Amino acid sequence: MNYLETALLLKSKDNILIFTHARPDGDTIGSARALCLSLRALGKEAYVFPNEDAHALFIPYMEDVMAPSSFSADFFVSVDTASAELLTPSALSFREKIDLSIDHHGSNTNYAKKSCISPSFAACGELLYLIVKELGPITADIANALYLAISTDTGCFSFSSTTPQTHRITAELMEMGCNMNDINKVHFRTKSLARLRMESMLVDEMLMLDEGRIAIVSILNDMIASVNATEADLENIAAFLELVEGVEIAVTIREVSTDHYKISLRTNGTLNASTVCGKLGGGGHPAAAGCKISGKLDEVKDAIMQAITDTKHETT
Amino acid sequence: MNYLETALLLKSKDNILIFTHARPDGDTIGSARALCLSLRALGKEAYVFPNEDAHALFIPYMEDVMAPSSFSADFFVSVDTASAELLTPSALSFREKIDLSIDHHGSNTNYAKKSCISPSFAACGELLYLIVKELGPITADIANALYLAISTDTGCFSFSSTTPQTHRITAELMEMGCNMNDINKVHFRTKSLARLRMESMLVDEMLMLDEGRIAIVSILNDMIASVNATEADLENIAAFLELVEGVEIAVTIREVSTDHYKISLRTNGTLNASTVCGKLGGGGHPAAAGCKISGKLDEVKDAIMQAITDTKHETT
Repeated sequence: MNYLETALLLKSKDNILIFTHARPDGDTIGSARALCLSLRALGKEAYVFPNEDAHALFIPYMEDVMAPSSFSADFFVSVDTASAELLTPSALSFREKIDLSIDHHGSNTNYAKKSCISPSFAACGELLYLIVKELGPITADIANALYLAISTDTGCFSFSSTTPQTHRITAELMEMGCNMNDINKVHFRTKSLARLRMESMLVDEMLMLDEGRIAIVSILNDMIASVNATEADLENIAAFLELVEGVEIAVTIREVSTDHYKISLRTNGTLNASTVCGKLGGGGHPAAAGCKISGKLDEVKDAIMQAITDTKHETT
Repeated sequence: MNYLETALLLKSKDNILIFTHARPDGDTIGSARALCLSLRALGKEAYVFPNEDAHALFIPYMEDVMAPSSFSADFFVSVDTASAELLTPSALSFREKIDLSIDHHGSNTNYAKKSCISPSFAACGELLYLIVKELGPITADIANALYLAISTDTGCFSFSSTTPQTHRITAELMEMGCNMNDINKVHFRTKSLARLRMESMLVDEMLMLDEGRIAIVSILNDMIASVNATEADLENIAAFLELVEGVEIAVTIREVSTDHYKISLRTNGTLNASTVCGKLGGGGHPAAAGCKISGKLDEVKDAIMQAITDTKHETT
């Protein structure tokens, strides 16, 4: 379905429950809130299903739209959720019942009865913008939710997924009164002390090889404990080494338990990360891949470095 | 003059020399390059005056447009330069000769014979976009230069100066073929090793006061030497403490020479930074101000903390 058909379908429904994905990001939270507020403005009953993974930054976007257990819905919508398995554990019983999936992932498994999917969109929030604009006026509160969705999913417009449409929709949202400054401050200009201390440790501990083209670092559980870092503080930490000037291959080794490690490999495209991790039983994308290795830390480092060397030799 | 009159004036001139400001940023460099290429496409002779402060990241935008000493110009234009004193030392002899100033600073001193100034624009590059569009088609090369100007002056669209126009012009530039990804990688997703090591030291050294609302740190010359940091590596380092979650007042003390220190104060608006620094002979804006203090480091810290306390008491 396209966005116009999706808006028409939504207009014909009432008592609507909206689902977000597990380990939620700004795109799923903002998209859900925007849709919920827009449906309510049409006089419908609409709620967002509670997301037990939502951390502190997202709570304010959930509180006043979160479904009470007493709410009995007739229509189930998921946003930004590529497969039913990506719903949170608490939403398990709804996996087979999703009536409509609104998403921008090309990998969407078509698990819902109907789907509205735009893989070329940088954020699901862009698709929601088009849909809610059909449903009624976009209030400042809705514009805020959509700005949260779009700005966070594009790294504040810095990711390669950003398109001219992304910028044009954002211009509209600003004119509709979104509070760009508060959102930018929280999401792009603030880091927790634990995160900064962890990054500081990574700078101190990282090893530069191959004249600075390869950076490798280990994140051990006692390092995490020493700065009281939570999983929220460690979000996307594997991207940190990529910041370092000159680094083309970034290896982040994360301790899972004694003698068990998870490797995240990021490359600038000169080396296929997926091929490297494939040699060690993992996989992923050409620029970002991962694998799990058991053994002593030194053995793990040797294994990943060997896989990098072998892949280089094969491709030259 | 408005941008249409400015474009008409430029069309009537030939042998044009363009000036950028000292300690150049992406906005002045990108604006100058865009104007130069656009004038050349009209068959005119146009060059950018060499900027001795331009660091490595900006050299590629200067090389093929830089004026040889043999170039004899008839018309002198400055871009993004609020006063004649902001021209580089090597451009000293041109201070009285600027025919046209194209700028977005409200503080522009009207030093040029004619001025085109738009203080509401987030970047001078936005103004140049409007002007060069009148001069002729915007090539990918020109679009790149304008994207550099606009993205760097808005912190990749995260600063409060960003407007709907900023986003709309950026959408146009993307459609005109600008290489957004390369520019974003270099300017927003890369840090030098020296910069990262300096930030790491700041995290280790910073002192948190008033339940984490005040952060204070000293940058001493031997710290800078220990990581081989250049001035380019230290650019805007006073903004680093503002990143820390919960910090409302960020004090960065930079050693100038033995017993001489420069203080940068950033606040989130709860305290007037200009008032605090005014007590110590400095000044600035409500959210960012500075002053110089002589004395032992401990005395300097006491002085700035006392000024903060006094200002708080006066305003409550």
